[in-house]
Amino acid sequence: MNTVDIITKKRNGQALAPEEIKYLVDGYTSGDIPDYQMSAFLMAVYFCGMNREETVALTRYMQLSGDTVDLSGIKGVKVDKHSTGGVGDKTTLIVGPIAAACGVPVAKMSGRGLGFTGGTVDKLESIPGFQTSMEERDFIEQVNTRGIAVIGQTGHIAPADKKIYALRDVTATVENLSLITSSIMSKKLAAGSDAILLDVKCGSGAFMKSEEDAEQLARLMVDIGNDSGKKTMAVISDMEQPLGCAVGNSLEVLEAIDTLKCRGPEDITELSVELAGIMVYLSGVSGTAGLDMEEGIAKGRDAAGEALHSGAALEKFKSFVEGQGGDPAIAEDAGLMPQQKASLDVRAERDGFVTALDAMQIGIASQHTGAGRQRKEDEIDLSAGILLRCKRGDEVKCGDVLCTLYGDEDKIQAAAKEAAQAFVISGEKPERAPLIKKIIG
Amino acid sequence: MNTVDIITKKRNGQALAPEEIKYLVDGYTSGDIPDYQMSAFLMAVYFCGMNREETVALTRYMQLSGDTVDLSGIKGVKVDKHSTGGVGDKTTLIVGPIAAACGVPVAKMSGRGLGFTGGTVDKLESIPGFQTSMEERDFIEQVNTRGIAVIGQTGHIAPADKKIYALRDVTATVENLSLITSSIMSKKLAAGSDAILLDVKCGSGAFMKSEEDAEQLARLMVDIGNDSGKKTMAVISDMEQPLGCAVGNSLEVLEAIDTLKCRGPEDITELSVELAGIMVYLSGVSGTAGLDMEEGIAKGRDAAGEALHSGAALEKFKSFVEGQGGDPAIAEDAGLMPQQKASLDVRAERDGFVTALDAMQIGIASQHTGAGRQRKEDEIDLSAGILLRCKRGDEVKCGDVLCTLYGDEDKIQAAAKEAAQAFVISGEKPERAPLIKKIIG
Repeated sequence: MNTVDIITKKRNGQALAPEEIKYLVDGYTSGDIPDYQMSAFLMAVYFCGMNREETVALTRYMQLSGDTVDLSGIKGVKVDKHSTGGVGDKTTLIVGPIAAACGVPVAKMSGRGLGFTGGTVDKLESIPGFQTSMEERDFIEQVNTRGIAVIGQTGHIAPADKKIYALRDVTATVENLSLITSSIMSKKLAAGSDAILLDVKCGSGAFMKSEEDAEQLARLMVDIGNDSGKKTMAVISDMEQPLGCAVGNSLEVLEAIDTLKCRGPEDITELSVELAGIMVYLSGVSGTAGLDMEEGIAKGRDAAGEALHSGAALEKFKSFVEGQGGDPAIAEDAGLMPQQKASLDVRAERDGFVTALDAMQIGIASQHTGAGRQRKEDEIDLSAGILLRCKRGDEVKCGDVLCTLYGDEDKIQAAAKEAAQAFVISGEKPERAPLIKKIIG
Repeated sequence: MNTVDIITKKRNGQALAPEEIKYLVDGYTSGDIPDYQMSAFLMAVYFCGMNREETVALTRYMQLSGDTVDLSGIKGVKVDKHSTGGVGDKTTLIVGPIAAACGVPVAKMSGRGLGFTGGTVDKLESIPGFQTSMEERDFIEQVNTRGIAVIGQTGHIAPADKKIYALRDVTATVENLSLITSSIMSKKLAAGSDAILLDVKCGSGAFMKSEEDAEQLARLMVDIGNDSGKKTMAVISDMEQPLGCAVGNSLEVLEAIDTLKCRGPEDITELSVELAGIMVYLSGVSGTAGLDMEEGIAKGRDAAGEALHSGAALEKFKSFVEGQGGDPAIAEDAGLMPQQKASLDVRAERDGFVTALDAMQIGIASQHTGAGRQRKEDEIDLSAGILLRCKRGDEVKCGDVLCTLYGDEDKIQAAAKEAAQAFVISGEKPERAPLIKKIIG
């Protein structure tokens, strides 16, 4: 086999055989195939796509490029949850404890973020003392005793994805269904869970701008998960505006705690209960075993709501934080979290309704406050970010605070202008768009 | 400016601004832009193309990445000739001396070959003693005194092209009109001539398989040449079957000498006189100055034919060889050229007419005899190659020799099978296809 022939074949619109895809993935991971051939191949895939069989093979060989985590030491049906990423998405911090409180074993590996804010691991590290790196034995032990543990990804999970993703990022080859699918699913399949729940975002703040694209991606990922022997479901949720009101690492942790205290924003509460409910169903706990999808999700949703409102989920969160060396007192005293340096309000310049609140634009502004990385080696300002004071559909008066930016004085000045551009205020109250658009299973 | 943004813009089908193209070419030449970004960009160009303004800019900045040769020390209108490459194309060795005999100053830089046979420089080096490397002063001096000199390309001509071409070759991004155009024309514009004649090949043995594609390429190159202030013309000629009968370095030199002695194959003689005639017209010598294109070419063709038939072109060839240290006696004694090691005949297996003689297939077989390089560092066997004993339209009897292969015993065995596949013999005499399909000026 020959790399140029394989690139040419894809470039000419032909489907590749599994062994050709294996040749590319193995050769690139080992360093035998150079970056410049892989990037040309990725651009050819951008234009010509891959069919389902090719995507399955790509995912499979990317998974097999590294280790598969052995979670067999954990009792019960382990459910992994993955979000395709958006602005203000702190659901893992809420959904994990709710699901764990219902009896779902939550053994999660999360990444660091490259973009608008940090990833779940960065967010957790804003909690004083919290450790995101742990021996596998201790990780499994914590899930068995406390019901939930979240650690950073190890270097041995899908190294092919790590290498290919880094290349896609700098060669304008991120936006392709098969490449996105294989990147997400190779890691999820290697992460050792029994079932997978995907939260596929759509809207201005997400990779997938339209519901159609999001659904296509969701169906492909669900198919590949199920084909690989893992019960897989997906939720398509809105990312036109940020999720919740907090964007930034410690700000999001505090909002997660508020939500676990039943006083968080409506949208993040709704989505968290829905996702936790589906995890309950996928795990077959709380009496959902054997039910059909609709009934099972309904029963799971009830159990999740109960765990939230009874305070059981909040207690689970504290136990989880404590188990990983963090100070559980943060749940009662926000003053223990990293403190903001400076703040700046963005105010409405007219009366009216917020008819749009562009997630992407808020994300960019958040990154510029210091909350997100532009390059892998960048340091994150864990206390920086944006708090939205109103959301789509809210009525505002001229002079009202739209949002507040936190971070270094000089950074938030520039970011404030960007944040202001996210808000569209007009005379007519917009229709309410549903947060959860579809469930695919 | 940012490389990823530029790749994205092209990938999305938008036209790039000249300064964006300059940023890419300069950055890649200096090493600031890595191979993997350039190859992704080239693949995006493969799919989205470039408009005329972009192609002009790309050509221009590739030219400006290195030196432009100063040929002002040579009297007269210098005409450069370039062939897009084919199998058995030794026209430079014939056209150069004919044009020089008519008074056209021929100051040519040629490349080494990567492919079926060597390039012009490799062919010339099969002449005992011939030097293809020369001080610029001596090069100019020889053109002024003998009328013609041909040397190898120096490292300072369009280094951007050198780097980009090497990358295209291993990333399946060779076949794009704008990339081919910029590669050829950046070198031609840097080579310092006053006028340019392009021989654009079309057919199975050429990059451009169809006449339409060849014409599109020719028109684009002619436009870019003229836009850059060089009078530029193009000939579109057939490359369905090899040109002439000899394929291989010393074999082609010997066929060139035969042709200069008016006993060469009909096709190569016809094309050489035509090309030399157009060079005469472009140079404005032999009474062609001021004539319109049709008259000028006709008069140029007459002058070229006269130079060939009078023996003046052969004398010019000998003087040229002598000037560069070669032994002019090779023109009279083929025994002075490198001698073939072994030979093998390929014979017809049925009676009939040669209805097709695939240039590409003969090219591949020729490369496998040792006449061409597969990698830059490969050594060429200067005496190896193929002599065709019949061409398209010829009648053959079962057992007749179709072609003879020369080279190492073990290599020509395998190559003979490939060469045999080039011949299609059937009962019906094929129609004669014109060798010169179009002249564009």
